[in-house]
Amino acid sequence: MKIALAQLNFILGDFEGNYGKISTSITQAIKDGVDLICFSELAVCGYPPRDFLEFDDFIARSNGIIERIRKQTQQIAVIVGAPAINPVPEGKDLYNALYFIHEGEIKFIQYKTLLPTYDIFDDYRYFEPNRIFDIVRFKGKKIALTICEDIWNIDNDNPLYTINPVEELRTHKPDFLINASGSPFDYQHMEERLEVIKGNIRNYPVPVFYVNQVGAHTDLIFDGGSLVVSPNTEVYDQFPLFKEAYRAYDLDEVILGRVRSCPVYDTIEVIHDALVLGIKDYFEKLGFKRAILGLSGGIDSALTAVLAARALGPDNVMGVLMPSGFSTSHSITDAMDLISNLGIRHHTIPIGKRFDDFIQDLSPLFQGRKQDVTEENIQPRIRMIYLMAISNKLGYILLNTTNKSEMAVGYGTLYGDLAGGLSVLGDVYKTQVFELSKYINRKEKIIPEHIITKPPSAELRPDQKDSDSLPPYDVLDPILFQYIELQKGPEEIMASGADPSTVRRALRLVNMNEFKRYQTAPVLRVSPKAFGIGRRLPIVGKYLL
Amino acid sequence: MKIALAQLNFILGDFEGNYGKISTSITQAIKDGVDLICFSELAVCGYPPRDFLEFDDFIARSNGIIERIRKQTQQIAVIVGAPAINPVPEGKDLYNALYFIHEGEIKFIQYKTLLPTYDIFDDYRYFEPNRIFDIVRFKGKKIALTICEDIWNIDNDNPLYTINPVEELRTHKPDFLINASGSPFDYQHMEERLEVIKGNIRNYPVPVFYVNQVGAHTDLIFDGGSLVVSPNTEVYDQFPLFKEAYRAYDLDEVILGRVRSCPVYDTIEVIHDALVLGIKDYFEKLGFKRAILGLSGGIDSALTAVLAARALGPDNVMGVLMPSGFSTSHSITDAMDLISNLGIRHHTIPIGKRFDDFIQDLSPLFQGRKQDVTEENIQPRIRMIYLMAISNKLGYILLNTTNKSEMAVGYGTLYGDLAGGLSVLGDVYKTQVFELSKYINRKEKIIPEHIITKPPSAELRPDQKDSDSLPPYDVLDPILFQYIELQKGPEEIMASGADPSTVRRALRLVNMNEFKRYQTAPVLRVSPKAFGIGRRLPIVGKYLL
Repeated sequence: MKIALAQLNFILGDFEGNYGKISTSITQAIKDGVDLICFSELAVCGYPPRDFLEFDDFIARSNGIIERIRKQTQQIAVIVGAPAINPVPEGKDLYNALYFIHEGEIKFIQYKTLLPTYDIFDDYRYFEPNRIFDIVRFKGKKIALTICEDIWNIDNDNPLYTINPVEELRTHKPDFLINASGSPFDYQHMEERLEVIKGNIRNYPVPVFYVNQVGAHTDLIFDGGSLVVSPNTEVYDQFPLFKEAYRAYDLDEVILGRVRSCPVYDTIEVIHDALVLGIKDYFEKLGFKRAILGLSGGIDSALTAVLAARALGPDNVMGVLMPSGFSTSHSITDAMDLISNLGIRHHTIPIGKRFDDFIQDLSPLFQGRKQDVTEENIQPRIRMIYLMAISNKLGYILLNTTNKSEMAVGYGTLYGDLAGGLSVLGDVYKTQVFELSKYINRKEKIIPEHIITKPPSAELRPDQKDSDSLPPYDVLDPILFQYIELQKGPEEIMASGADPSTVRRALRLVNMNEFKRYQTAPVLRVSPKAFGIGRRLPIVGKYLL
Repeated sequence: MKIALAQLNFILGDFEGNYGKISTSITQAIKDGVDLICFSELAVCGYPPRDFLEFDDFIARSNGIIERIRKQTQQIAVIVGAPAINPVPEGKDLYNALYFIHEGEIKFIQYKTLLPTYDIFDDYRYFEPNRIFDIVRFKGKKIALTICEDIWNIDNDNPLYTINPVEELRTHKPDFLINASGSPFDYQHMEERLEVIKGNIRNYPVPVFYVNQVGAHTDLIFDGGSLVVSPNTEVYDQFPLFKEAYRAYDLDEVILGRVRSCPVYDTIEVIHDALVLGIKDYFEKLGFKRAILGLSGGIDSALTAVLAARALGPDNVMGVLMPSGFSTSHSITDAMDLISNLGIRHHTIPIGKRFDDFIQDLSPLFQGRKQDVTEENIQPRIRMIYLMAISNKLGYILLNTTNKSEMAVGYGTLYGDLAGGLSVLGDVYKTQVFELSKYINRKEKIIPEHIITKPPSAELRPDQKDSDSLPPYDVLDPILFQYIELQKGPEEIMASGADPSTVRRALRLVNMNEFKRYQTAPVLRVSPKAFGIGRRLPIVGKYLL
């Protein structure tokens, strides 16, 4: 039996476009003599469609596509993900379903059992969990169908669910297992995924065909990385990361397992590639071509510019230098060096005069009050006006250049440097910003060395340094990581050796700046816990304040 | 038996503060000879605590409060909501629990069965559902404990859950039923709530004691409105809306049901009161006193100013007039009339010169291009700089004045008039803005008549009217309502008689402006479907575009 997997990049709700891709793969597979082709979770509408699922009209359109796929299955079986209407009135109205379609008929529908409802996942918001376990019989083989999370409830001392769908399916003695996923990237997730598949095979040694979607949906990046794993737990084949791909396999060969693929991941490299895809898809899927960003001469905007140039082409990136009276001379020369290394467009608009004007306008109101963060905030807000005006006039999208450390502690100005349509580095700690910059410079010096070596500064007052208001990033970042990614409390973090007052201050800053994060752009997610939909905290509260 | 209910206003994660309120009510109840006092859902930490629940440290602090409450129960039984750790490793780590504490001991814990995971609710993100149904025996009575959603799965042709906890509990023949809720306000919800309680009593005629929390948590407003309903389905007593209250009842009297309370709600009045509480709690709980807002002479900012003055006191509200060359003369006189009627502070800062400066600065870049929305957007962004500077310097919070109709179709400038810490009217359609304004003027002419009667305009170009770019609001709002609140598709909305091209255009505008809503302030929720956490849609997608 010949089995094909199609790792495709869908657009949420773009039924015609998604169907076009699915249909093309089916046609290819028929030509290749494939018996069975598998697509990813909710392939018909893309994953995650979120509250679009609550519109009957949306479901009707999805069902219309299933009808069209049905007509292509005279010579081939198709496994494709789409929402299915719950046939009984009790429970949620939908299932997250995998359709097995053959000979023009829907022969079998497998519903998703384990509904991830944590971090960025909201599956139980929409779907009723499956409670019935059966297999498909096809050309003498018994096939177990699973959807994403369904294979994940294993090898865990503290399992999230009270049921294991694969154990249930095993009672039917399937010959192989298919998993259709919509499994988002984070820099740990590829290795976890492979371990989970191997864990399932150790419990029940059959081949596993794992097909994931690829492509970014706003903040969420899907890496693809579909896998074929033999019953001996060796990887038979791995799909490329961050790219569409279609591949076909002979089942007997996979069972024999003589081919071995050894995927190796470099954390910084995959973060880099993920961010480039995240930018690219955000623009392409919205129908935009060009990005604009402020270039301060600092490392965050430099790194963002490099990633944008790689995603969109240097011609499609415009860097704007907006020096003030507090800008150092190297802020200009460093930014100009970067611009020339990258070959991107640029403009310079000094803001000193406008800053003085606003200060003047406000002086009657501010009389007798001393300078504070107010004056600092005015500068990035003036810059925002220029950036947004150019972006409005020329049809660019403004990229936000704030990193995760700054976003965590609120070191940024709302409606100023926190503005932008997409946050490129909002899930990348400052220490990782340095690592990424060094990674980029490995082959070729693109980011001027001085940008990497000089001490970080917002340059909003004379001789300002980040370290005036924040602990050094190599102290701050591990505290933030323990609080944000590991969800440790203050005592636990102190027990790791961190200075108690620094810990208390950092956690307090994180919590009191929730209001800023609420209003900032979607953040490209590369870690297991990014700011945005996956981290839901109240603005008004009194925990650790 | 004497039963007390305490309808309290908590702060999320403020364990000391919340415990103080709980403890004071217990002391009062002991003094009143009460046998049993009930608090609302997750009273110890406030509802909804969101991802704070994922911190072990947070749960440990909550458990510490339960320990302290335990010590106050020698003479009284206390029913109080708090998270409980799941004693088995399988499933989520927590339950949403109701503790029955008496004689210094936790005698019983009821876990929540139905976990609302829709709209603004994320219960299944955190909690394992209850599967065991038992009752409490106390002083010769059998008591059924339920938590919020547990009583809601009745009288529905299309029930959301496959189980009805009250039916399960009924098998134990309880003498009365307690429901501890964290049930947020919307203008329909009070009547639905009462119907649900009556529905439960019709199935099983015992008294129901329903206790809800009161107070706003960022965007969510809890109205309280706790209820005692007799076995004859008559309301025995209703708690005040939007206020803390403590009341005690004799069970036998409630069973006899001779007292009747007939709650009557006026939709516009409750929306008004909810918004006032929403503003008040946002400021108080964040430790702020004063609000600032731009006064354009239009109805949205006028209404917001009135609500703010009622919530915070006129002395604590500052209106800023920022006329441009496109502002009409009445925009100033109308705003000044309002200011004098309200007695709020004010300042005037003309923006014409700054606007000209920015246009001048950008002219080399914009040469040969015609005027468009770019020039319009610069004006509200200049205004934002002044408003945020004053707010930063003087410790004010900027109120956003955008209404729901504008927010829906993206009629507003990101980082301009869409700025602000809290959106007061973001869940109030323009047609409701008029209704609310007329309601306010019923007793006393506070909003100048001309503000209500003149045609809405953004005044960002000469002679601009909202109706130049948008359908009239009495046409637009019903379309938006059907799409947003009722989740109807385009064909269904057209079938209601709306003009097809207007429907298509309106829905397209809603979907393509998701990116603006993503970055705007939390919206005080007064409808069953508000923008914000309760409406989760992708920015990048192609549905109805």
